Amino acid sequence: MGGVAAGTRWIHHVRRLSAAKVSTDALERGQSRVIDASLTLIRERAKLKAELLRALGGVKASACLLGVPLGHNSSFLQGPAFAPPRIREAIWCGSTNSSTEEGKELNDPRVLTDVGDVPIQEIRDCGVEDDRLMNVVSESVKTVMEEDPLRPLVLGGDHSISYPVVRAVSEKLGGPVDILHLDAHPDIYDAFEGNIYSHASSFARIMEGGYARRLLQVGIRSITKEGREQGKRFGVEQYEMRTFSKDREKLESLKLGEGVKGVYISVDVDCLDPAFAPGVSHIEPGGLSFRDVLNILHNLQGDVVAGDVVEFNPQRDTVDGMTAMVAAKLVRELTAKISK
Amino acid sequence: MGGVAAGTRWIHHVRRLSAAKVSTDALERGQSRVIDASLTLIRERAKLKAELLRALGGVKASACLLGVPLGHNSSFLQGPAFAPPRIREAIWCGSTNSSTEEGKELNDPRVLTDVGDVPIQEIRDCGVEDDRLMNVVSESVKTVMEEDPLRPLVLGGDHSISYPVVRAVSEKLGGPVDILHLDAHPDIYDAFEGNIYSHASSFARIMEGGYARRLLQVGIRSITKEGREQGKRFGVEQYEMRTFSKDREKLESLKLGEGVKGVYISVDVDCLDPAFAPGVSHIEPGGLSFRDVLNILHNLQGDVVAGDVVEFNPQRDTVDGMTAMVAAKLVRELTAKISK
Amino acid sequence: MGGVAAGTRWIHHVRRLSAAKVSTDALERGQSRVIDASLTLIRERAKLKAELLRALGGVKASACLLGVPLGHNSSFLQGPAFAPPRIREAIWCGSTNSSTEEGKELNDPRVLTDVGDVPIQEIRDCGVEDDRLMNVVSESVKTVMEEDPLRPLVLGGDHSISYPVVRAVSEKLGGPVDILHLDAHPDIYDAFEGNIYSHASSFARIMEGGYARRLLQVGIRSITKEGREQGKRFGVEQYEMRTFSKDREKLESLKLGEGVKGVYISVDVDCLDPAFAPGVSHIEPGGLSFRDVLNILHNLQGDVVAGDVVEFNPQRDTVDGMTAMVAAKLVRELTAKISK
Amino acid sequence: MGGVAAGTRWIHHVRRLSAAKVSTDALERGQSRVIDASLTLIRERAKLKAELLRALGGVKASACLLGVPLGHNSSFLQGPAFAPPRIREAIWCGSTNSSTEEGKELNDPRVLTDVGDVPIQEIRDCGVEDDRLMNVVSESVKTVMEEDPLRPLVLGGDHSISYPVVRAVSEKLGGPVDILHLDAHPDIYDAFEGNIYSHASSFARIMEGGYARRLLQVGIRSITKEGREQGKRFGVEQYEMRTFSKDREKLESLKLGEGVKGVYISVDVDCLDPAFAPGVSHIEPGGLSFRDVLNILHNLQGDVVAGDVVEFNPQRDTVDGMTAMVAAKLVRELTAKISK
Amino acid sequence: MGGVAAGTRWIHHVRRLSAAKVSTDALERGQSRVIDASLTLIRERAKLKAELLRALGGVKASACLLGVPLGHNSSFLQGPAFAPPRIREAIWCGSTNSSTEEGKELNDPRVLTDVGDVPIQEIRDCGVEDDRLMNVVSESVKTVMEEDPLRPLVLGGDHSISYPVVRAVSEKLGGPVDILHLDAHPDIYDAFEGNIYSHASSFARIMEGGYARRLLQVGIRSITKEGREQGKRFGVEQYEMRTFSKDREKLESLKLGEGVKGVYISVDVDCLDPAFAPGVSHIEPGGLSFRDVLNILHNLQGDVVAGDVVEFNPQRDTVDGMTAMVAAKLVRELTAKISK
Amino acid sequence: MGGVAAGTRWIHHVRRLSAAKVSTDALERGQSRVIDASLTLIRERAKLKAELLRALGGVKASACLLGVPLGHNSSFLQGPAFAPPRIREAIWCGSTNSSTEEGKELNDPRVLTDVGDVPIQEIRDCGVEDDRLMNVVSESVKTVMEEDPLRPLVLGGDHSISYPVVRAVSEKLGGPVDILHLDAHPDIYDAFEGNIYSHASSFARIMEGGYARRLLQVGIRSITKEGREQGKRFGVEQYEMRTFSKDREKLESLKLGEGVKGVYISVDVDCLDPAFAPGVSHIEPGGLSFRDVLNILHNLQGDVVAGDVVEFNPQRDTVDGMTAMVAAKLVRELTAKISK
Repeated sequence: MGGVAAGTRWIHHVRRLSAAKVSTDALERGQSRVIDASLTLIRERAKLKAELLRALGGVKASACLLGVPLGHNSSFLQGPAFAPPRIREAIWCGSTNSSTEEGKELNDPRVLTDVGDVPIQEIRDCGVEDDRLMNVVSESVKTVMEEDPLRPLVLGGDHSISYPVVRAVSEKLGGPVDILHLDAHPDIYDAFEGNIYSHASSFARIMEGGYARRLLQVGIRSITKEGREQGKRFGVEQYEMRTFSKDREKLESLKLGEGVKGVYISVDVDCLDPAFAPGVSHIEPGGLSFRDVLNILHNLQGDVVAGDVVEFNPQRDTVDGMTAMVAAKLVRELTAKISK
Repeated sequence: MGGVAAGTRWIHHVRRLSAAKVSTDALERGQSRVIDASLTLIRERAKLKAELLRALGGVKASACLLGVPLGHNSSFLQGPAFAPPRIREAIWCGSTNSSTEEGKELNDPRVLTDVGDVPIQEIRDCGVEDDRLMNVVSESVKTVMEEDPLRPLVLGGDHSISYPVVRAVSEKLGGPVDILHLDAHPDIYDAFEGNIYSHASSFARIMEGGYARRLLQVGIRSITKEGREQGKRFGVEQYEMRTFSKDREKLESLKLGEGVKGVYISVDVDCLDPAFAPGVSHIEPGGLSFRDVLNILHNLQGDVVAGDVVEFNPQRDTVDGMTAMVAAKLVRELTAKISK
Repeated sequence: MGGVAAGTRWIHHVRRLSAAKVSTDALERGQSRVIDASLTLIRERAKLKAELLRALGGVKASACLLGVPLGHNSSFLQGPAFAPPRIREAIWCGSTNSSTEEGKELNDPRVLTDVGDVPIQEIRDCGVEDDRLMNVVSESVKTVMEEDPLRPLVLGGDHSISYPVVRAVSEKLGGPVDILHLDAHPDIYDAFEGNIYSHASSFARIMEGGYARRLLQVGIRSITKEGREQGKRFGVEQYEMRTFSKDREKLESLKLGEGVKGVYISVDVDCLDPAFAPGVSHIEPGGLSFRDVLNILHNLQGDVVAGDVVEFNPQRDTVDGMTAMVAAKLVRELTAKISK
Repeated sequence: MGGVAAGTRWIHHVRRLSAAKVSTDALERGQSRVIDASLTLIRERAKLKAELLRALGGVKASACLLGVPLGHNSSFLQGPAFAPPRIREAIWCGSTNSSTEEGKELNDPRVLTDVGDVPIQEIRDCGVEDDRLMNVVSESVKTVMEEDPLRPLVLGGDHSISYPVVRAVSEKLGGPVDILHLDAHPDIYDAFEGNIYSHASSFARIMEGGYARRLLQVGIRSITKEGREQGKRFGVEQYEMRTFSKDREKLESLKLGEGVKGVYISVDVDCLDPAFAPGVSHIEPGGLSFRDVLNILHNLQGDVVAGDVVEFNPQRDTVDGMTAMVAAKLVRELTAKISK
Repeated sequence: MGGVAAGTRWIHHVRRLSAAKVSTDALERGQSRVIDASLTLIRERAKLKAELLRALGGVKASACLLGVPLGHNSSFLQGPAFAPPRIREAIWCGSTNSSTEEGKELNDPRVLTDVGDVPIQEIRDCGVEDDRLMNVVSESVKTVMEEDPLRPLVLGGDHSISYPVVRAVSEKLGGPVDILHLDAHPDIYDAFEGNIYSHASSFARIMEGGYARRLLQVGIRSITKEGREQGKRFGVEQYEMRTFSKDREKLESLKLGEGVKGVYISVDVDCLDPAFAPGVSHIEPGGLSFRDVLNILHNLQGDVVAGDVVEFNPQRDTVDGMTAMVAAKLVRELTAKISK
Repeated sequence: MGGVAAGTRWIHHVRRLSAAKVSTDALERGQSRVIDASLTLIRERAKLKAELLRALGGVKASACLLGVPLGHNSSFLQGPAFAPPRIREAIWCGSTNSSTEEGKELNDPRVLTDVGDVPIQEIRDCGVEDDRLMNVVSESVKTVMEEDPLRPLVLGGDHSISYPVVRAVSEKLGGPVDILHLDAHPDIYDAFEGNIYSHASSFARIMEGGYARRLLQVGIRSITKEGREQGKRFGVEQYEMRTFSKDREKLESLKLGEGVKGVYISVDVDCLDPAFAPGVSHIEPGGLSFRDVLNILHNLQGDVVAGDVVEFNPQRDTVDGMTAMVAAKLVRELTAKISK
């Protein structure tokens, strides 16, 4: 029951139709108008929020949520397309207070804003292909960055979205970033089942594009020979769980982003052991504890310019939404790293 | 854990800000731009889909899905805000075939199209109040009706959305409709806990506005004295479950909409007994079976100009999404009534 | 994981102790003091509630909840011991309104009061045996009936409690009653696995004791040869589900209780098909719908002097507590039959 | 997560191996030895059980369970491969008594025996293809029928198994049977996604083979144009749910099997509404109630020579196994029809 | 669906009634009689159990369970009111043996006794306000302590109960105690949403009252600025999870209670990471492992005079009751610390 | 709902029958034929697989799965009888890749083969007693070991199966092995509730038989006085969780099997904390993390000649089958230790 089946079928409809009676030109004009309207909606919200923040004053950087409900580049389950609204709900849910662990006040509007979701399903349902869709994601990210002091904190969606997001961040800032990538998998395969935009290939695309200087992968415990070879080829620093007890000290005192445009943090919720985050598509036992992740994030030194939290799959969560709370706390603590 | 808590908090932010340093004018201009962009996005998708349908030809009326993910006017739980994407997923899910029970082919693009969701949460999060929000819903419905041969089939959301939807349908067609309303509750209270837009009051607003000639309520089994008095006041035909075995024959041979602008069908998923539809906010035992509902719908005579399926709450569904399948089949069978 | 395992073990402790060093007399005195204190607590609550009702005036009969959290006489699962607080929660839960289907206002304190639970586990844990425990249940019921205008509406617990409850009702009123008994099973076996107080034997005890004139059993679909023979022996009117479509008309126009002390209604939640009430210990497909039960109850003529709702097992309910809502609605509609 | 993925992958291993270094002959000899051993195991158990029954005497026909844990011919989910042990557990589970509704004693060994499962996964894992696998199923059924007075009552598995089972029954008895087929779907498509053994095609195979004279399909509510055309082509009597209220009387007084070799009953658990049987792969609302099914079965006149209960999917059942109990009760009541 | 909604509504009834026709005096007399009966029931059980223990001889201190099913002072969910019977069930459940990890035999009646629950809901339902209710809790604790060698081990309920319990312990012993408090939250706010008895304020009340000399808080990871300031104001030793890896050694070798009346241990189940204890109202990732908690408890030196296990919420537990088993093991290991 | 209830009842049937009319001889002959056929089926599959492996060449040792679906020797729940097919499904499930953590390729047929399940239930259902059944398990293991290069990796079933498995391994190899036993319980009681084949006694049987030289037990946290005494009596090295932080270093550098016939690894899934493996019969908080287990296994030096993974109970697993994935990963990583 893929989350985007409707879109998938419509693409066929649209193709069939256009093959039959509608000119390609007319179709593409229609699609472009839909895409433009989508970006306009994000732009107007970013503008409004940023104006308000600037009126308040005293903010240097402020985390701004942008949802990318895209699940169709997953190899196994497509539920992450449903994640953004569930994460937002959990962020503001009354079961916890409004402070982060180190004392940032989320109730202060200068700390966290939101520009809503890129209308991914609506665009796909108009027959727009993946190349162009990935560009829409990139454009959306840039639209947010356009508005000072907003910095994009992206809610996935599957991990395929990290490629267009990091590309946009790097292009907008004018150079590569350092990436801290927490994940059970390296997501660095050349292509997965022929899909170059697969959620298992995003970091191959990022490294090929030169959007990152250093790439540190932490939490890895499902990796093939090709995954290790690609890691070497791109100079990736892969920290596997097998040796985490030895690497822990180093990982709890990272310093990143100097000499480049800053730090990007990409958190795949499955970096956590499934005991801590059961609501993921790929259950891979032997992962990090939630505290392990916080220890790494809290102690990281560097200017965090953007980030993402991806691969939370609400269709696999417990009935009480434990993983939604986990994803939300990750977003909250990342917000504390970004906003200042 | 209300589905729209984020929005709720932001409204306060926005008010605080505007009270402090931002002029009301500037804020309203920003909100208007966001609303305009939202409507533009729906318009562009409706245009594109309708153009394609018209190019195909031979269609007199075609059901067009419009999601309204609004849950904050509910008195108990707000999960219906998450329903539209789950219903879409279930409509196209591979577990069933593409024919309706009476043989309509949903794979034929002339039968069913989709213009996506009204970005309710994004608009609320900009501080837009309910009056204006309800207008946005109405405008969205009219935008769809603008494009021949599209007819709106709205995915809720809670039942408060039926008011702006029916209002739009009636205003656009230029006169009242007949309404078949399947529900456990009459939703006709003057106001609920002071909220005139409450999901328990939508049909009071509809009747006051003169948007309906006849209103038939079927499945009723949770009704107070006020509910029965309001029913009498507005001339509502209330069929309570207590007497369903006697009313069944009449309800399985309805003829509606003659002399007015057509028939509107509003299906609250909780019209069904919770055995058949556990994923609802208000579990009220003693309801209709799914077959009872189909027998009423299949045998209804009349020109169905629009409809809605509301109050499915995915946060209360079974782990297999049984109620999502139920909501989806309701949408499929309503599509068969609308499209021709 | 029996709900009363703690009690079971303590009984052994107490026996061992008393065998060893404590005189039987001393032990029994202690037990008696505990039992007296238990009954005093119920009496004081009944008195206070009844005083308030009488001060209000105009009440002829008022349903009064009495919980009997006893599960250890069940043959399969003992979860019904946890039911009473869950049913109370569901009765007052904000998801439904305060009117019964026929218009009784539960918010009116004259309609429904509550004297809490018999402290079954506490008493058993002091080493009190079943004979004496059953007497405590009977005494508790009589204590409630002592206070005009209270009529006991008992929340089980398993079905073994109907014996001491009906016995108390009959003894207090001074003669037999007619019983409407809704159940998947006849519960009329001479003894089950040697336990004469078994939940499968309560109606054998009732008939032997002469506490009932007529006993109508409806919903029966799990019955052995012995069950049918016992039925004949005691003159029970057994309506099996196999012939329900033929018996329906008769059962929807019952007139009971004339010439005796009134009508007692005992509802085993498993009379319903498990589709409507999954939270029961004995899943027996092929039962009544919730509407079938309401049709029988609403149309019953007779003076209902007391009743019970038993065998709801919260440990088998859905995560949303659907069966708790079902049990609560049964209690609400029975309240409407009793109070006047 | 297909229930037979292991087998699927091994088939590839075996093919690759055999392509490489192992002669086809050697491989086929090995496979044949495995198949022979499998059939021997069933034969020995059938022999032992039948000997014991014959020693007891007085039995004319006795239902004998045969599990066929095959799920790989399903189009959507493959969980039915896990069903047979779960159904057995539920049949003997202590939560219900040992009598069927009409008084057959299942504790009497003359009424119900069991020869275990065909080792489907083990055989497939040796690289055996579907043609041959279907023959193994047929041979297993014949092996049971070989032993008087055993009559096969087959536990699926998906619906694809009905073809080899009915074929075996008909071939063994020397002529066609009449089939009562309860299902949401007609399963009569020529082939499904190219698979002629698909669970959606079994009854096309049966009718083509001449194994049935009359085929009555009851509960149908998901059927395409092709399904109806195939129905006509083969002279199938299709009773759709749309008209069930009209057909009910006729279906509750069926007389079948006269002039042919007897009656075969095939019950797809999804003939029931998902409210009554949520544990199925294809949730199709609007089905029969459990009582509807029992009314049809109890009133059927005819000599039932064999039957099956298929498509129960334990991976979609409720946590309490409600559908397992439903499947088990179907088996119990079918046993009562067969044994005499 | 608050666990005490019934009580809440009744309070209104009682107030309305008393306003109208019943004298305040009469009402208060009735309430007092109910409270007296409640305390008598606890006293009689404590007496009986203590007599038996003393007859056995050789016991210096013995843990005695006292349930306090109070959930209405919670800010978010009120399910902890249902916890005590579930914890008792799990303590004696057959899935584990009767020894604690360090070898205490729970089957020895000298090690663990039980005086049942304070009838919180029954008392509230009579219109008794929180001030008086808290006194009833205190009196119940003192009643247990009256009977040598019983020491109270309290089963919550929400954390608001720790205030009246500690107060009673301190008053009864005649001086302050040292408190080891395991929790995700400091529960030391001056008042929460205006409620001075809130479960978020209990330790503010305790410190103000001078009932504790040292207060050590371990597991803290959701704390606001006010929480830290209150901590300083009262001289609380707050150990936050952020620094747990550094504090671990110190916390695994605590020595408490010297020079005061002993040690009190208060365990909020949410001190554990939700992976280990999902059944809590406030899911706060990043907590202690179960082994972390045991290491702290096993190595603690001091005379433990009383304790509590609070905030287990059965309505959020897994279907198998994992958190019930966790709460039960906490009770078992605390029992081993107390009894000697 | 015991997993083998059917079998249990049949045993009674068979006994009754044989007592009555069938000679013991005839019955035993029938049983022997069934047992022979069962072993033949395993032998033929082992032969075929081993032939193929030998044809491929270059394999010294290859893990070969053998399922033993036996649950009736459990003291609490019997669900482990359903485990083998669920573990197989999870091993090959598409959610993870085919490499083990240290790079073994499971897609290489030389690394992992499968001979299916011992038909335990079928044999028991023929009235075969436990003594003989245990011999069948032993014979099955030897049958696998007969075929070079296969080494048995057994899928339980409850822990009682380790006794016949280890016995077979030791007898076949001609001497004792060293055993690494990961478990929450020592399983070394003389007998449990009179059952010498209990899952709580298997290691007592193994030590008595001299099948092991060293026995290391890791993860122990539920142990009685008898358990510790039996440990001493047999010279078992018991590592309790209470001291795991101190023992960790030693356990992460084990060297076993020198001077004996090799190493046997027995993994009871409940060695893990229930947070990591909720799907077990005995929830015992305070266990190992999944990474702890992998660290011990990865660093173990020794020739692993066979192993088992037992006590996974699918009836207690999460709806997503998290524990199935955990059991499968244990099997995968053990495969990597065995195959070379």
